[in-house]
Amino acid sequence: MKSDFLYGVHPVREGLQGRRKPHELFVVEGPLNERLHKLLKLAEEHGVPVHRRRKADLDRLAGQPYHQGVVLSIEPFAYADLDDLLSSWRNSGRSAFFLLLDGVTDPHNFGAILRNADAAGCLGVIVAKDRSCPVTAVVDKTSAGAAEHLPVCQVTNLGRAIEQLKDAGIWVYGLSGEVTDKPLYREALTGHVALVVGAEGEGLRPLTRKLCDGLLAIPMAGQVASLNAASASAVALFEVVRQRLASGGS
Amino acid sequence: MKSDFLYGVHPVREGLQGRRKPHELFVVEGPLNERLHKLLKLAEEHGVPVHRRRKADLDRLAGQPYHQGVVLSIEPFAYADLDDLLSSWRNSGRSAFFLLLDGVTDPHNFGAILRNADAAGCLGVIVAKDRSCPVTAVVDKTSAGAAEHLPVCQVTNLGRAIEQLKDAGIWVYGLSGEVTDKPLYREALTGHVALVVGAEGEGLRPLTRKLCDGLLAIPMAGQVASLNAASASAVALFEVVRQRLASGGS
Repeated sequence: MKSDFLYGVHPVREGLQGRRKPHELFVVEGPLNERLHKLLKLAEEHGVPVHRRRKADLDRLAGQPYHQGVVLSIEPFAYADLDDLLSSWRNSGRSAFFLLLDGVTDPHNFGAILRNADAAGCLGVIVAKDRSCPVTAVVDKTSAGAAEHLPVCQVTNLGRAIEQLKDAGIWVYGLSGEVTDKPLYREALTGHVALVVGAEGEGLRPLTRKLCDGLLAIPMAGQVASLNAASASAVALFEVVRQRLASGGS
Repeated sequence: MKSDFLYGVHPVREGLQGRRKPHELFVVEGPLNERLHKLLKLAEEHGVPVHRRRKADLDRLAGQPYHQGVVLSIEPFAYADLDDLLSSWRNSGRSAFFLLLDGVTDPHNFGAILRNADAAGCLGVIVAKDRSCPVTAVVDKTSAGAAEHLPVCQVTNLGRAIEQLKDAGIWVYGLSGEVTDKPLYREALTGHVALVVGAEGEGLRPLTRKLCDGLLAIPMAGQVASLNAASASAVALFEVVRQRLASGGS
């Protein structure tokens, strides 16, 4: 039985109550605090077997030591395959519309971005395996269920995925966050397009920027003059929607 | 000395480390859990006096019983006055651009919306006192500092504020979330405008809808077909930015 592993009190609580089937709950040995007691009760209510383990065992299951004494194994998220995603786009006869994430590690942001992508009619989201959090129960929940419908691909190498999209005739635009780049609104986005959004605070990596066909900026006013990754993705995705509606395209 | 009161472990932690001056920390009597111990230490590091109080006293300070045993009094947020906001707009000679929130109670959403409004060049945000969370330290933090720059007005009656804006020659548009309403992109938003965004899940109240000059919808695709309040506000605010740039206006 293949499993994803969630850890930390909040993700495990969501995992016990989410759409994917929880397999087993692992709780640290010794006296428990109130929050862990509540998780044990929740596991019991949902018929999930509980095992007490040494901290070192939990460290190994979680892959790192900051798990607050609790790890949940859960039915794995069903990631889509990039080749399958591209063939189903080709068969659909629609304009390509993909979103690539170059490092979104916060599950709330990730979930909000999936919800935006789904609402904008994006055909799929492509994330770099080592620069993204997995689709956890928290992501599921923040996406308001979009993660259940929208294909999400995990790729080992985002650069290679960008090349593959370009080879398929798709224009790949990076959202740069730098006001010196071309304003988003000046670029025609009615053809086959993919947008690349970078990490909160860091933006796109240099190699990602280099691989993009173009870099686009959201014009900013104000004192802070930046948007979080979820809001930036919403603005860019819906600019594609606007242009396509205006041109009468799909 | 006037104070705002923050309560709950996470808001108090942010409050002890935020931009506004913390006054006094009130902690429940009796044995403390690890998280409260950490807050005591943090208060000590920041030179904030700590008082131990009975739970009933904390209930009174917080105005309700769910405070996790901790209440922080803090320098109050400096809300703007609506009349002042309108006169400073008139003196600026700029096109009006305001955002009204009809019930945004989640501090993370509220903070993200303030950040969006600041980045879009909004002149101020107007919220209903009884349908909004106050500008807490969590809001400050999620806004990435926008709450420090952008005027935020708390009004007792949002309907009256809408009337006041209309009397001042401003067009007030409600973001309805209903696809049957006019698409956002079809309305000219280059004049004096204010946008009204509703609560997560509930949208605009009937009275608010009635008072608006028009209701606008963000066209949605997808299975979930809805955006959270922060993303919806980003899309609408930046449509105003786009139209004004296209028309060469301010």
